[in-house]
Amino acid sequence: MSEPTTQPQDAAVDPAPSAPASAVTADPAAVLTDRAAALDSADPLRAVRDRFALVPDEVYLDGNSLGPPTTQVMDRLSDVVGREWGRLGIRSWDGSGWWTAPERIGDRVGALVGAAPGQVVVGDSTSVNVFKALVAAVRMAPDGRDEILVDAATFPTDGYIAESAARMTGCTIRAVAAEEIGAAAGERTAVALVNHVDYRSGRLNDLPSVTAALHAAGALAVWDLCHSAGALPVALDGDGVDLAVGCTYKYLNGGPGSPAYLYVRRDLQPRFDSPLPGWNSHADPFGMAPAYAPADGALRGRVGTPEILSLLALDTALDAWDGVDVADVRAKSLALTDFFLESVTALVPPGRVETVTPLPHAERGSQVSLRCANSGEVMRTLTERGVIGDHRSPDVLRFGFTPLYTRFADALRAARVLADVLEGTP
Amino acid sequence: MSEPTTQPQDAAVDPAPSAPASAVTADPAAVLTDRAAALDSADPLRAVRDRFALVPDEVYLDGNSLGPPTTQVMDRLSDVVGREWGRLGIRSWDGSGWWTAPERIGDRVGALVGAAPGQVVVGDSTSVNVFKALVAAVRMAPDGRDEILVDAATFPTDGYIAESAARMTGCTIRAVAAEEIGAAAGERTAVALVNHVDYRSGRLNDLPSVTAALHAAGALAVWDLCHSAGALPVALDGDGVDLAVGCTYKYLNGGPGSPAYLYVRRDLQPRFDSPLPGWNSHADPFGMAPAYAPADGALRGRVGTPEILSLLALDTALDAWDGVDVADVRAKSLALTDFFLESVTALVPPGRVETVTPLPHAERGSQVSLRCANSGEVMRTLTERGVIGDHRSPDVLRFGFTPLYTRFADALRAARVLADVLEGTP
Repeated sequence: MSEPTTQPQDAAVDPAPSAPASAVTADPAAVLTDRAAALDSADPLRAVRDRFALVPDEVYLDGNSLGPPTTQVMDRLSDVVGREWGRLGIRSWDGSGWWTAPERIGDRVGALVGAAPGQVVVGDSTSVNVFKALVAAVRMAPDGRDEILVDAATFPTDGYIAESAARMTGCTIRAVAAEEIGAAAGERTAVALVNHVDYRSGRLNDLPSVTAALHAAGALAVWDLCHSAGALPVALDGDGVDLAVGCTYKYLNGGPGSPAYLYVRRDLQPRFDSPLPGWNSHADPFGMAPAYAPADGALRGRVGTPEILSLLALDTALDAWDGVDVADVRAKSLALTDFFLESVTALVPPGRVETVTPLPHAERGSQVSLRCANSGEVMRTLTERGVIGDHRSPDVLRFGFTPLYTRFADALRAARVLADVLEGTP
Repeated sequence: MSEPTTQPQDAAVDPAPSAPASAVTADPAAVLTDRAAALDSADPLRAVRDRFALVPDEVYLDGNSLGPPTTQVMDRLSDVVGREWGRLGIRSWDGSGWWTAPERIGDRVGALVGAAPGQVVVGDSTSVNVFKALVAAVRMAPDGRDEILVDAATFPTDGYIAESAARMTGCTIRAVAAEEIGAAAGERTAVALVNHVDYRSGRLNDLPSVTAALHAAGALAVWDLCHSAGALPVALDGDGVDLAVGCTYKYLNGGPGSPAYLYVRRDLQPRFDSPLPGWNSHADPFGMAPAYAPADGALRGRVGTPEILSLLALDTALDAWDGVDVADVRAKSLALTDFFLESVTALVPPGRVETVTPLPHAERGSQVSLRCANSGEVMRTLTERGVIGDHRSPDVLRFGFTPLYTRFADALRAARVLADVLEGTP
């Protein structure tokens, strides 16, 4: 999962379009400064940064944990609280579209993960959606399949919830490295839960081939997109994914704890048998019938009343994607992480950090994880100096690169401050 | 469950402290107007109304569905978005107390439902909390108990979720009228799920005696407090309730879809075995251990990352309770509903409505439900004329009386407009 520190792939680094000839003889920091300026100047996404309310003079590289607010979110919340809730009250469930917001906003998220409308619904936490997805998947599996595979390096909650889903459906559970999960699936495997990008290492798993291998083994594939949605192209429909979940507070900038989402492929929806059949998923929710009858479509994945303030803040955050091509986001993400790794290699004293994130582009998400002694203390000092990343126990520094608002100059400054901190320079 | 229309209990109606002697000969409407003014003037809660952002000239009697915003909620959200999220970012999980908010706000809710600190946690929807509570209760029950009883008139989602909990734990389910549920419990009964106040009729069920009867039968009691918390005294600890759930967007005014809560009595917490063991309930959530180990206490009921904007709006809404005695709330609630029923009887043409809500105080929540022909159309017209209640299929008008902001004059105006609508007066 981890790899030795080496130079980033040269081929991946976009050469500065207007690198001055004199750069060859300049000091490395000056060369990198010029390159950053040139890369920022040529960035097709550079104007998108203005859509975010960022802290001046701070480099925010923690958008893989909590994306920052957009400039419009407070205006939207003022309208939701003052007019929709305060003046219209309960009439807003219909009149302001609150009731249908989970599926309407779900379609907006779907557009960012390659899902045609009608297959994504927003609501609940990622953990709750993992439970729905796994139990429903087991119930769809042919008789006799009673094994759930989980990604051995998974973010812990997925494993804990998978264990509960297994216990409650009479399945066994087996942890397997993500890259081996396709090969590990056998005739007893009902479903596998895999992370698209590993939260710790930043490793990008091969969604198309793992999905295909699971299908070849007769198993269903549930993908966790928490660390990929909004950072790189995802083709849920195109790659035949069965079910997927993800959060919206990282690269989708929905706000702290903004609601998660659930994707159920259209042809599987009639067989989606939820373990949480709340009234919001009923075919006639206001009929108040004592017997449950599931709605058609994605909204079968709904449960109870959605947390509207958090949900509509997410709706507004998604406006930041207007006119943005995810292919441009991916290209910039790789260029940013390449440039950061190059800067770290050039500036940080040798041997002080080890790159955990895979270097091949095909295996890299949108974060760079560096193994580092005293990583907790190092991250505290970085934060004091205006470079915000985070730290995962025991020894990993994480830097998330969100192409919508992160500049190459930010990547360089982060590397420079990291070098200063590790050199003990005040 | 429904009762014939009769006069409200005279003994229950607080006579107007300063009713003029001339009232005896005045027309009924004038008498009622004077009484309303006197009752409002003597109301110990009258100043609390100023804590709410209400629509001028509107009578809002739908606080049993969606409470209105308090005057402070927008300032709080501005601070949460601008400073906590926007400036501090992820540092707010610790620095702004986001991480511990579910249990801290849970204790504030607990204070309103008779729960000592450390037993209530806020988060997820009511439906999700019903699932946690029922599955955990079945797992606590002695071997051989495999029956779940549900209140036959329950709000539908509780029944749907109970059905799922039964299916996933190998139990059977049986629907019984709430008032018979204690007697119905037998040696196979693991747990019963009962509504404290019926959402449709407004009937108050006898929590102490039903709980005692369930315990006598060896079963656990799970109460749904959606329609009682904030409207009348609840003594969870005092009455020995095992588990309870409730929403916060009705009488607690948390905002549309604000998070629900879960109560687990302290001595049962070590045995609370959650079906949704998300990482927020782990003993060491940031240890990121692959094996689940539950935290101690109420936070064992947490699941995933809480929706912070909705959660903190609720926190601010609870400030409206500062210095408020729930006994005063109950007294005013009964006086308000008595006065409304008296006004309806005096003003509405005979035979046009039938009171569904029980008249004895011991059986009445904080709403009045009236059966009425064309109730949907009647409620639309009431709303157009500034009296906001709601309508439950097929023929019930619901009027919620929230003592924190509803005046006796509002109750009278609602009755007068209802009379006008039913008389066809423009």
